[in-house]
Amino acid sequence: MTSLLEQEIESQPEVIARLLEREARHIFEIVAHLPSFDYALIAARGSSDHAATYAKYAWTTLAGYPVALAAPSLLTMYGAVPRLASALVVGISQSGQSPDMLAVLEEGKRQGRPTLAITNDGASPLAAMADHVIELHAGTERSIAATKTYTAQLAVMAMFAAALSGEARNMDALQQLPAAIETTLHLSARIAQDVERYRYMDRCIIIGRGYNYATSFELALKLKELTYVMATSYSSADFRHGPIATIESGLPVFLVMPTGATYDDMLELARDLRQRGAELLVISESENALALARTALPIPQGLPEWLSPLSAIIPGQLVALRLALAKGLDPDVPRGLQKVTRTL
Amino acid sequence: MTSLLEQEIESQPEVIARLLEREARHIFEIVAHLPSFDYALIAARGSSDHAATYAKYAWTTLAGYPVALAAPSLLTMYGAVPRLASALVVGISQSGQSPDMLAVLEEGKRQGRPTLAITNDGASPLAAMADHVIELHAGTERSIAATKTYTAQLAVMAMFAAALSGEARNMDALQQLPAAIETTLHLSARIAQDVERYRYMDRCIIIGRGYNYATSFELALKLKELTYVMATSYSSADFRHGPIATIESGLPVFLVMPTGATYDDMLELARDLRQRGAELLVISESENALALARTALPIPQGLPEWLSPLSAIIPGQLVALRLALAKGLDPDVPRGLQKVTRTL
Repeated sequence: MTSLLEQEIESQPEVIARLLEREARHIFEIVAHLPSFDYALIAARGSSDHAATYAKYAWTTLAGYPVALAAPSLLTMYGAVPRLASALVVGISQSGQSPDMLAVLEEGKRQGRPTLAITNDGASPLAAMADHVIELHAGTERSIAATKTYTAQLAVMAMFAAALSGEARNMDALQQLPAAIETTLHLSARIAQDVERYRYMDRCIIIGRGYNYATSFELALKLKELTYVMATSYSSADFRHGPIATIESGLPVFLVMPTGATYDDMLELARDLRQRGAELLVISESENALALARTALPIPQGLPEWLSPLSAIIPGQLVALRLALAKGLDPDVPRGLQKVTRTL
Repeated sequence: MTSLLEQEIESQPEVIARLLEREARHIFEIVAHLPSFDYALIAARGSSDHAATYAKYAWTTLAGYPVALAAPSLLTMYGAVPRLASALVVGISQSGQSPDMLAVLEEGKRQGRPTLAITNDGASPLAAMADHVIELHAGTERSIAATKTYTAQLAVMAMFAAALSGEARNMDALQQLPAAIETTLHLSARIAQDVERYRYMDRCIIIGRGYNYATSFELALKLKELTYVMATSYSSADFRHGPIATIESGLPVFLVMPTGATYDDMLELARDLRQRGAELLVISESENALALARTALPIPQGLPEWLSPLSAIIPGQLVALRLALAKGLDPDVPRGLQKVTRTL
């Protein structure tokens, strides 16, 4: 019997295709009618926060809007009231249940700012609070680790980036996503055998930069949730500011390095890490990058860099799934976790 | 012979006293003359980024200003031009040399926004670029791991929070800092013996929240740089969203939990972690919290929570120093690092 997690990973081409069909026009209309704002404040936790991190890059590069990631505890723990003048206030939550996300949107509304909810549950409190709601249409996510709702959230953030940019070619590029994810799933067939080698790995490092900084966090979270490996993620720039000292011979390092603006920087780091004796697992479509790897995790050619996080996370999800199975763990029910985390 | 690192750790009461004396009035004057802004965009990396993370909490709770942490690679890698309307643009860099920090300030200036540099080198390119410069007056930092410049950066961010709040009692509270840091150094005398137990620790978790979310990152970085331990930091809220699955019997977990708004949440987590078999190292002034610890790392009573990151990092710096010595490592020259990291 395949696990729920595997079914949900496999469903992603269909989920993203449906989402594009149902929400692309809606997002264009929302953007066309948004009141003026100077920056976006996004409240999110866990995988949703990684989707927000992606928006921090995509919304600025494509449309110039800076993105601030909200610290929801400012409101819920400290009772602080941030001035939200000039802000578009956004909450991302799979369940739409978390009280801390809700508090941020509520404050945005109180101050008369435009509010946006991105959630898989259109009947949730978060959806009820916001001026505009984008539903993920991903179907119930039954496994505890988020997969299809994460890529759906990324796709929503990408659609907003395209709509905010006002450029038709960006909106057109989105249509490549379902096929690119499908191809990535096919390219990942070897992973079940490849992960055997990592059965007794107890820690690893994951590095991504720019758009794929988010991918490094999401991959680390999947490994932690599903395989209990101590996975730590970095940008290549931050990694050089100290943590590179932890590299030892044989330490597994995942490098998320699709071609694009950050590729040369990542390639330089990859070569440095090889010299320091690290064992590289490389997610890329570049033959040169994959050739540096002990374990190559290919993604398809042709997707523009700003959309690459939607293909680059797929091998990561599959590594976490297959490694959980290799360890004899149940991928659907990680120890000590619940699906909805109601943090304050 | 004591290491440079130890000397620099011990110098912090004096460094912070000098900084308050030389810059408090200056910061008040800067704030009095700043043009209007709706939020702050702060560019920083490494330890400086942790000082920025502290500002994200302190500037909002004390003065209501949201803080966005800049992604400098947006400018340097992607050539993106963020709209900086409504922003105060801040760069924090010990050396003032990093090209990516410089690019953010330069863009702020080009768009006519107010710019602020916080650096230990008043003759650096970053200082030359900014409208206003706050020097740390910390003296040359000779060991590679930042200690005195980190607490000095925190103190600058705290002075700005107090000045932006316009409340005299906040400015008065700052005067407690040098004595509080001095007392923390005295309270930390046992650490040299206590760390023996962790000689063969290869990984650990560090949790802080709110103001001390920054402390958890900075402590993790010190451990990584100086002892090569794989240390991973979290907020207590994010930790419950998945990573708590990695807890195993005996896994060392540092909890940064001074009393204040986040204390009850941290205490609940501490009890949960004890039940899951984790080994707790607790940084707190609360007897109840310290009593839960295998290794108690006390800080002094009486400092308000918003200033506690300046005392709470001290035991962390000392644990990293003493553990490096216990491992026979040179704390002044971690492998593979340079003092000035010129990232793009």
